[in-house]
Amino acid sequence: MTDTFQRMWAELLPVGRSASSGGYRRFAWNSADAECRAWFEQQARDRGLHHELDHNGNQWAWLGDPHGEGAVVTGSHLDSVPDGGAFDGPLGVVSAFAALDELRSRGARFTKPLAIVNFGDEEGARFGVACIGSRLTAGVLSKEQAHGLRDADGIRLPDAMEKAGYDPDAIGADRERLARIGAFVELHVEQGRYLAEGQSVGVASAIWPHGRWRFDFHGEANHAGTTRIEDRRDPMLTYANTVLAARKKAKLAGALATFGKVAVEPNGTNAIASLVRGWLDSRAADEATLDEVVEEIRRAAYERGERDGVRVELTRESYTPVVDFDGPLRDRLARVIGRADGHPVPVLPTGAGHDAGILASAIPTAMLFVRNPSGVSHSPAEHAEEDDCLAGVAALADVLEDLACQG
Amino acid sequence: MTDTFQRMWAELLPVGRSASSGGYRRFAWNSADAECRAWFEQQARDRGLHHELDHNGNQWAWLGDPHGEGAVVTGSHLDSVPDGGAFDGPLGVVSAFAALDELRSRGARFTKPLAIVNFGDEEGARFGVACIGSRLTAGVLSKEQAHGLRDADGIRLPDAMEKAGYDPDAIGADRERLARIGAFVELHVEQGRYLAEGQSVGVASAIWPHGRWRFDFHGEANHAGTTRIEDRRDPMLTYANTVLAARKKAKLAGALATFGKVAVEPNGTNAIASLVRGWLDSRAADEATLDEVVEEIRRAAYERGERDGVRVELTRESYTPVVDFDGPLRDRLARVIGRADGHPVPVLPTGAGHDAGILASAIPTAMLFVRNPSGVSHSPAEHAEEDDCLAGVAALADVLEDLACQG
Repeated sequence: MTDTFQRMWAELLPVGRSASSGGYRRFAWNSADAECRAWFEQQARDRGLHHELDHNGNQWAWLGDPHGEGAVVTGSHLDSVPDGGAFDGPLGVVSAFAALDELRSRGARFTKPLAIVNFGDEEGARFGVACIGSRLTAGVLSKEQAHGLRDADGIRLPDAMEKAGYDPDAIGADRERLARIGAFVELHVEQGRYLAEGQSVGVASAIWPHGRWRFDFHGEANHAGTTRIEDRRDPMLTYANTVLAARKKAKLAGALATFGKVAVEPNGTNAIASLVRGWLDSRAADEATLDEVVEEIRRAAYERGERDGVRVELTRESYTPVVDFDGPLRDRLARVIGRADGHPVPVLPTGAGHDAGILASAIPTAMLFVRNPSGVSHSPAEHAEEDDCLAGVAALADVLEDLACQG
Repeated sequence: MTDTFQRMWAELLPVGRSASSGGYRRFAWNSADAECRAWFEQQARDRGLHHELDHNGNQWAWLGDPHGEGAVVTGSHLDSVPDGGAFDGPLGVVSAFAALDELRSRGARFTKPLAIVNFGDEEGARFGVACIGSRLTAGVLSKEQAHGLRDADGIRLPDAMEKAGYDPDAIGADRERLARIGAFVELHVEQGRYLAEGQSVGVASAIWPHGRWRFDFHGEANHAGTTRIEDRRDPMLTYANTVLAARKKAKLAGALATFGKVAVEPNGTNAIASLVRGWLDSRAADEATLDEVVEEIRRAAYERGERDGVRVELTRESYTPVVDFDGPLRDRLARVIGRADGHPVPVLPTGAGHDAGILASAIPTAMLFVRNPSGVSHSPAEHAEEDDCLAGVAALADVLEDLACQG
């Protein structure tokens, strides 16, 4: 199992990696994404699994009957944020294949269909909405909504899909597929430091509610060298004030609020901006707190906009309510892993969204986290030690054996 | 003269204009720039002028001996800022040709060589340094410095020049050319509202000292949804605070300070930025004030950077000292225009840089400004009334007649 894990890891490592940043640029339907997908299909074929592409661009590798009932599904995603790390996503897919290899070497006898899945466009790096593949499948993103999405170059999602060889008219809810799944378990690198000083593997309790909001600050383009301060309508000032307000409001509420993406027009050194567009990512332990923090940031933006002569427009691009993972499944995982490990298993919440969070509303879902010593994620510096990764594979194998090989 | 002005204006109007913004995208060595250059050459040929391309990519249209002494030169530039207006630059070139047409219709007899010039890359939109054509000619930008410049896509200036059919190894100071010029007069749309309520045409007194500084804010990329506030090193906060500090310091000093351009890495909604790069444009009535304002902004950035765990790096990309235009030439222009107009001519300073400001250190130089009712510039909304433009042409014709047709 160590061998196959290492081999798969080495195969994926160079795909879509930027030589300059060392980070990954695997975005929905780009060439690196296609290479990851080809790799996934090859892994399925090498293991005699039935490879299936669903109509939402998600990949499935089946052991047993894809149309059987009560299937056990594991996996994650292979795409990345801009200049993301190697682990976020791929660790769950590689561990899934390695866990299957481990179970086969144990001579495990499967009583239920098992599938390994690669969900498409989890990070939302290209079209601004996260978990597009699982959202479409669960019916929480409609075909019409998806067709309305555009990337930074103005390319429409259906055109990008079509260019990559997929049929954009076939996308949409896939409830029959979900109805045949008995449990979904996603393994993921931890994106915080909850496990940092402790055990290699933990079980997820919940995902914080989170969302993305786009602030459009509309000012007036003008010459930076000749326009008097009192004649200016400079949206960069309103943006800057909103960035600082967001941090302040979030800190007071024990929440998170981040502006990590910005687009400026015309973006010239000697021109006052006509438009600054800033994206807010915000999360909190509960929805009431999240809503209050965003409302306070909105109010700060509008008030400063009045002063600056800048019109502020706010668009909620996505919103994911709090996810409490299935209690019995979570407890079962903790029991199985604890039995092998001899210690009580850490149970932890996370602020990050996942396909598991989307599917949790439709099917019993759980997550395993693998220790991340620095907590750094969405960065080339994201890292997990190999021993911890292998402990994760062993834990996942135990869990799958318990779920798919009983009675 | 009205006819030829209108015809030339109509010819240039569609070149490099964005259908979406209505603004111009005529950047050094791009296809719109090439079209403008072809247009200039055609204007020269249509009038029987000798067209000459100097080794720095500036175009000259000569009436009389290009190697004669004491030449009178007029003109401006045809490139634009991103989504700039139609007047900034082109008005000076079109008015120069129209003024020549007017003088010919008056039967003027030239006693000195006359040249109309189109300086290359005045706005610096592509390579971040303004007035590259005139700076190279005056020897204030060296060949080595120019060769080190890159555009936003990483394309080197010499490669861009070569691709456009020019020899990048030939660039450099051209002092013999400047020594043969007796006077340079640049007509330009006003980029403020000094003339707004008054006369159509004014004469420049001085150009404020100005410069461009790049602030690199180095933080640490991380997951926006999982990284605790106390574990963050978020450069967007330091940038935002610096933007607000710049406005405050400039206002207190009666100066200008603008952040209009920003670049973020990795620029993902759910990733804390690793790097925010912001460009400061600052100007003031004198150099001591300018230096003090920039020093205060620098100090504010460094202090906030300490708090945020963000390393701040400051690079001065360009600096242009105050320019006092040649006194006798300025007074002569004011006299000539005032004589025709019957009123004292407004004499005004400007915060904008111009090729005339670069050349003023080498040769007697002056500027005429044409009224801009809103003061808006570097924007698709930039405008001047046709009557004011024609008054500008008439004033320029009077000035050129006085300078080039005497004794």
